[in-house]
Amino acid sequence: MRLRFPTPAHKPAYAFMDPLTTLTELLRELPGIGPRQARRLAHWFVRKNNAWLTRFTQTLLEAQKIVRTCAVCMRMFPAKQQEEKECPLCRNSDRDTSLLLIVEKDMDLENIERTGAYKGRYFVLGGTTSPLEKEPERMIHIRELSALLEATTHIKEVIFACSATTEGEDTMTFVSEKITPILAQKNIRLSVLGRGLSTGTELEYIDGDTLKNALQGRR
Amino acid sequence: MRLRFPTPAHKPAYAFMDPLTTLTELLRELPGIGPRQARRLAHWFVRKNNAWLTRFTQTLLEAQKIVRTCAVCMRMFPAKQQEEKECPLCRNSDRDTSLLLIVEKDMDLENIERTGAYKGRYFVLGGTTSPLEKEPERMIHIRELSALLEATTHIKEVIFACSATTEGEDTMTFVSEKITPILAQKNIRLSVLGRGLSTGTELEYIDGDTLKNALQGRR
Amino acid sequence: MRLRFPTPAHKPAYAFMDPLTTLTELLRELPGIGPRQARRLAHWFVRKNNAWLTRFTQTLLEAQKIVRTCAVCMRMFPAKQQEEKECPLCRNSDRDTSLLLIVEKDMDLENIERTGAYKGRYFVLGGTTSPLEKEPERMIHIRELSALLEATTHIKEVIFACSATTEGEDTMTFVSEKITPILAQKNIRLSVLGRGLSTGTELEYIDGDTLKNALQGRR
Amino acid sequence: MRLRFPTPAHKPAYAFMDPLTTLTELLRELPGIGPRQARRLAHWFVRKNNAWLTRFTQTLLEAQKIVRTCAVCMRMFPAKQQEEKECPLCRNSDRDTSLLLIVEKDMDLENIERTGAYKGRYFVLGGTTSPLEKEPERMIHIRELSALLEATTHIKEVIFACSATTEGEDTMTFVSEKITPILAQKNIRLSVLGRGLSTGTELEYIDGDTLKNALQGRR
Repeated sequence: MRLRFPTPAHKPAYAFMDPLTTLTELLRELPGIGPRQARRLAHWFVRKNNAWLTRFTQTLLEAQKIVRTCAVCMRMFPAKQQEEKECPLCRNSDRDTSLLLIVEKDMDLENIERTGAYKGRYFVLGGTTSPLEKEPERMIHIRELSALLEATTHIKEVIFACSATTEGEDTMTFVSEKITPILAQKNIRLSVLGRGLSTGTELEYIDGDTLKNALQGRR
Repeated sequence: MRLRFPTPAHKPAYAFMDPLTTLTELLRELPGIGPRQARRLAHWFVRKNNAWLTRFTQTLLEAQKIVRTCAVCMRMFPAKQQEEKECPLCRNSDRDTSLLLIVEKDMDLENIERTGAYKGRYFVLGGTTSPLEKEPERMIHIRELSALLEATTHIKEVIFACSATTEGEDTMTFVSEKITPILAQKNIRLSVLGRGLSTGTELEYIDGDTLKNALQGRR
Repeated sequence: MRLRFPTPAHKPAYAFMDPLTTLTELLRELPGIGPRQARRLAHWFVRKNNAWLTRFTQTLLEAQKIVRTCAVCMRMFPAKQQEEKECPLCRNSDRDTSLLLIVEKDMDLENIERTGAYKGRYFVLGGTTSPLEKEPERMIHIRELSALLEATTHIKEVIFACSATTEGEDTMTFVSEKITPILAQKNIRLSVLGRGLSTGTELEYIDGDTLKNALQGRR
Repeated sequence: MRLRFPTPAHKPAYAFMDPLTTLTELLRELPGIGPRQARRLAHWFVRKNNAWLTRFTQTLLEAQKIVRTCAVCMRMFPAKQQEEKECPLCRNSDRDTSLLLIVEKDMDLENIERTGAYKGRYFVLGGTTSPLEKEPERMIHIRELSALLEATTHIKEVIFACSATTEGEDTMTFVSEKITPILAQKNIRLSVLGRGLSTGTELEYIDGDTLKNALQGRR
């Protein structure tokens, strides 16, 4: 049995626009936070002591001030110094500079780093695009990617690491059309992450596309 | 198919203690927020512009400053003025002062208000207790409740509105033992919310307790 | 990640109408069995040995032959003898014959018996009805219920045990309209299972109807 | 809110061993069918009319009689004639006889056929094995596979299509050890379905193994 939550037919009597209500409304803007959890978080915040809240708000403002977009790979990173323009990954000389992995967003890059499976450099598109999008170049960092490829002397291979979803594939199509001339001119290889069985895939439930890719990519 | 997320065998290379990491750790303390969502929220916050962040931190500090515990019902409320000691519900003369509904927590009170089904006053215990608890009086506002009942001239009936769970029932048992002498002396009735079929209950899945209560409470 | 199952673009090559396919199609008719599980069950059945299958089909035919509708309460029961017309519950003299609990379906009765909370007799409506239904008397055993009530000398109270859902309430409304004249004439009380908090209900999520009922039915 | 179902403290009064109870117990043996659904299915079956039940039991017995294990690929198939020893797939001359896809079970084969992505022949192991298994050759059709490979003049490549799970990989290891000598002697290639991103895989949630495979298999 599961109760449906009733539509709030009755407004509470104390509905003047107080900071607790404003706070709840601001918390509702957070990604993945519904109205009830926003209220619960608001109650949780106001019960914290002054020291914690001060630390939280200061960290928040400091983080926003110190975090910037890397001039090379376009990901967000916390700059230690004012003049820092490139993120630690782009400055790290131990990384393989001949490989450039193109990802959709910061969280993809962070997850890939966590697996430790990749040792080259990255470029963060900052989003996805779609065939219906009128100005797709406004959705992703395509100009910055083009400029990076025009200027590079290191990169030998660009690897698309977009999600195996419609958005991911549309984005790959758009980006590859844009950068193919530069890659051809500079003799840079273009590749795409292999498709096939991922951890846990069962043959009883495999879809046709994945099976086709897994058969083509058999080894 | 559902992938298990791997244990983070490899630490990212940029693991100095930056404000973004600190922010992520502070956000992990929020109720119901896991490690991945904390990171996503941290990224989300630092992308907000200055105006939003300033408004958010100011609202947060202001809310915490203005919100206080009502001296009568013990719930959290935003005080409009410094000298405000009682919440609007406790000051509202339209409410039925002969009824006192005892709830576990603020969110219960808010939900009950939203339904509009109750017109009396409230008392918020601020938690639950259990038979194993050595000092149960420290877990809930039992002293404040006793004092309120000792002092009242209005209350004719105290209604327990604890959840139909083990914690709720343990709390009811503890509180009723404590307040029964006062209630007897002041001739205040003690009641408990009726048990039975709640919205959506199907007879095919009903448990024995609920059925027994529903049979006893048939009307 | 969750894979979508592809639409079956390609039919298997061996698609002549064999008994395995027919069996799969018959198994698809079972309540709660989807196409994939039907196929899995068909494969499972044909792998069983002859002895098991013979026992299963014989039990099936025997059960269908022996199970009949009780002439009194309208539930399905396995008759031990050809001339058996009433189910063991209706014949059981230890049950309280002054109470008649009206339920929607056999599974409700079985579940209530399992809880052991009720000691009277039953009547199974055999379904639910709705305000839009043109011939509601065809959906449920209303004629049989009326006849039972007309004839009874034992019943002192009829208790509705319909689910706390729209269908349940519509059915109760329809049935009570039909039987009220008989009940009035024979001085039989009509009651409904109590509404309120059921096991596990939390005040933070309670709906207005349940709360209203729980307040009215407080004890 | 979700009710826990109570332990059946009270046995129903009519618990003689009737065919309906026996039927319920037999239905409980079906894969994926719990006690409650078994009871619901039993009730459903006994309400069907005689014609349906007769058709169902006849189809069941006929299916079991007609379905046999293919002498070549070891899958279950419905034989049209008594003397039929090989399944339609093994007899179909349009299939590519140079490819042999090794799958765990019939349902895998059926799903792969449904995708239409593969045009060669199959071999069904009939199960999985594990390193702890003392007699792994009793769990799967390894002897039949060895015999098939010894005898073949067509097969140029054997492709493992085991699930990307621990069981699948253990089975692959065991089988490849057993058949490698035969393959070497007969110059048959051994391959495994490609690993990588499957449909729907998101980079934000990708695991290390899948990413490593996807990087190695990039194209």
